[in-house]
Amino acid sequence: MFKNCLENVRNTVPLVHCITNYVTVNDVANVLLACGGSPIMSDEPEDVTDITSICGGLDINIGTLNKRTIEAMKIAGKQANSLGHPVLLDPVGAGASALRTNTSNDLIRDVKFACIRGNISEIKTVANGSGTTRGVDADVADTVTEDTLDKAVQFVKTLAERLDTIIAVTGAIDLVADKDKCYVIRNGRPEMGKITGTGCQLSAIMTAYLVANPDNRLEAAAAAVALMGAAGEIAYGQLTETEGNATYRNRIIDTIYRMDGETLEKSAKVEIC
Amino acid sequence: MFKNCLENVRNTVPLVHCITNYVTVNDVANVLLACGGSPIMSDEPEDVTDITSICGGLDINIGTLNKRTIEAMKIAGKQANSLGHPVLLDPVGAGASALRTNTSNDLIRDVKFACIRGNISEIKTVANGSGTTRGVDADVADTVTEDTLDKAVQFVKTLAERLDTIIAVTGAIDLVADKDKCYVIRNGRPEMGKITGTGCQLSAIMTAYLVANPDNRLEAAAAAVALMGAAGEIAYGQLTETEGNATYRNRIIDTIYRMDGETLEKSAKVEIC
Amino acid sequence: MFKNCLENVRNTVPLVHCITNYVTVNDVANVLLACGGSPIMSDEPEDVTDITSICGGLDINIGTLNKRTIEAMKIAGKQANSLGHPVLLDPVGAGASALRTNTSNDLIRDVKFACIRGNISEIKTVANGSGTTRGVDADVADTVTEDTLDKAVQFVKTLAERLDTIIAVTGAIDLVADKDKCYVIRNGRPEMGKITGTGCQLSAIMTAYLVANPDNRLEAAAAAVALMGAAGEIAYGQLTETEGNATYRNRIIDTIYRMDGETLEKSAKVEIC
Repeated sequence: MFKNCLENVRNTVPLVHCITNYVTVNDVANVLLACGGSPIMSDEPEDVTDITSICGGLDINIGTLNKRTIEAMKIAGKQANSLGHPVLLDPVGAGASALRTNTSNDLIRDVKFACIRGNISEIKTVANGSGTTRGVDADVADTVTEDTLDKAVQFVKTLAERLDTIIAVTGAIDLVADKDKCYVIRNGRPEMGKITGTGCQLSAIMTAYLVANPDNRLEAAAAAVALMGAAGEIAYGQLTETEGNATYRNRIIDTIYRMDGETLEKSAKVEIC
Repeated sequence: MFKNCLENVRNTVPLVHCITNYVTVNDVANVLLACGGSPIMSDEPEDVTDITSICGGLDINIGTLNKRTIEAMKIAGKQANSLGHPVLLDPVGAGASALRTNTSNDLIRDVKFACIRGNISEIKTVANGSGTTRGVDADVADTVTEDTLDKAVQFVKTLAERLDTIIAVTGAIDLVADKDKCYVIRNGRPEMGKITGTGCQLSAIMTAYLVANPDNRLEAAAAAVALMGAAGEIAYGQLTETEGNATYRNRIIDTIYRMDGETLEKSAKVEIC
Repeated sequence: MFKNCLENVRNTVPLVHCITNYVTVNDVANVLLACGGSPIMSDEPEDVTDITSICGGLDINIGTLNKRTIEAMKIAGKQANSLGHPVLLDPVGAGASALRTNTSNDLIRDVKFACIRGNISEIKTVANGSGTTRGVDADVADTVTEDTLDKAVQFVKTLAERLDTIIAVTGAIDLVADKDKCYVIRNGRPEMGKITGTGCQLSAIMTAYLVANPDNRLEAAAAAVALMGAAGEIAYGQLTETEGNATYRNRIIDTIYRMDGETLEKSAKVEIC
């Protein structure tokens, strides 16, 4: 049950090492605190081995990668693997540049990921090892819709099996799958796309959920996705007519801070395929 | 008309590559989304050629420059030039350090800018190739006032002609000029100076406006300046007596998110010299 | 009097050079503006000598250190020393990694600090030259409580004497001491720990207070600590039942923006030991 997943995070306060982009890093830290986790950011190769060792999990987000941080991602990923910590990959912009695509490929080759989360264009790039996307947003042609849902579910399950990981594709409809089972989640609001970094925030929350629910990782990943979407809906309902994307951002984090297990359970729109 | 400039941004969703400082980058990304554009940040020399190629314009802000990002600015600037994308320079702190002054000079020599925007101290440094300023704020002695306006208008027109670009000087009175024409804009509030990064935000918005209005760049640049100032006025009117600069920041971005062409047209206080 | 310390900041607008982590840097800049100072961020070794020279003080925060910024910290610290500017150290995560502990030790050896501020685990690491902490938060076993207060006061006074600096330990009870005198401050709310970077913000404010009160540095440092705590209490009282840590963050900065000397004086819960 999603309720238990949420409560396990609040009860254990998982410490999450984030190597994440500097655009959305503040929101990532605050949303980790809001959901019941604790963040620590470090991206210097000489620092990350120690830092990831005192944490419970690692969130790697390639949004503003550079050569130094790519090296740090690899070192930290291997160390987290050796300690059995769950590692999540958010391949921001994979398909938009050769460096991002190659870095994503290299990381997947060298590090064992518990979960890979991205928009559909990024996850297709992960699947193909190459791709083209328009910036950091999903290509319209790739969008998961009710019409393409069956095919998309099959795609994520197959990829999850091939990479032996959890694959999460987020968009209007969210998919969270391992090889056998796919959670289809219909929470969220299109206006969340007008806030920078809701995806980055989600990746960090998912990492905390994976750490706090070691025996139940697929469900925990799905619970985190439903949490973000449900918070987006609740917060949207509180916006006044003069408020826009900046306040919406704050209200989503506030809503996650206030969320309890019952509300999450009641709000989640989930189907299992 | 400013209305058309705004609507062209909303209708075409220009993708803007930002190499910008890490202090205000989150607000820059959110304000780009608020105004109808789409941001992508990348500052690794090996990444920027690909990234700028999929964008419509490039915003270079030297606020927290380092050797790696300076190299990225040059590579991205040249690539954007070769593709005919508009490039904007925000020479944050030019005059405050030799590195910033020299980087600004080097960029202007190597990259063709569609627009250069700064406070009066920074733009004087651009004009002279050297200068001294107190930090990142304009020197009081340099401020554009009603008394010095005629001289300031002549200064920006002359500089615009010499550098073959649009020059925007923002402060209590804003000037946006090419060699023939100067928009004098009297929107805005002094309290905007108590928010970090309203200038950085404006530079990003201006880049989006330049991309979306290729046949009308001077007017588009002026429209963006009026938009920021008008949003500052409207948002200020909404502040309660317990609110300060943090909430004011959010309210300005919210106001830009809600702004329509008619409101902008009606709010703009513009004179052409 | 704390009132005078606050007013000296508002009247002189101290310019503070910050080499600080990219997680909380935006809040650091806005809170410096809110308290009456002015921020400038620069962390490139070739830039920091010029930048720190035009400022009144330097805030060094090692939260997301890397080799480049460590070099910049050392260069800037020595330059600020040579100009007689107060320099503050915030040893974020000292004890959590060898690099952070060593960097903290190296900085204390090479740079003369006017103040060192951290949580109790970080300050114990500073005292011992080594340590272990759980991430960036204080270890529970180390917490300063009413039971351990006398011992803790003696510890900070002794350390202040040995390092010839002001030592500030912040937590549920805050201590600000030189060798002779310790301010014990009981302002603040536990919920401030659910906002990322309230400590980073405080370090920047303290630096501004040190700059603006050269003849009264210990009291100024204590005034800044009381300001942050009092703002946390006032802002907490304004939270509605749907608001959480994101809005709380904004409200604290807003409250600092609105704070006057009388309110600070009246709100401060201070005892001198």
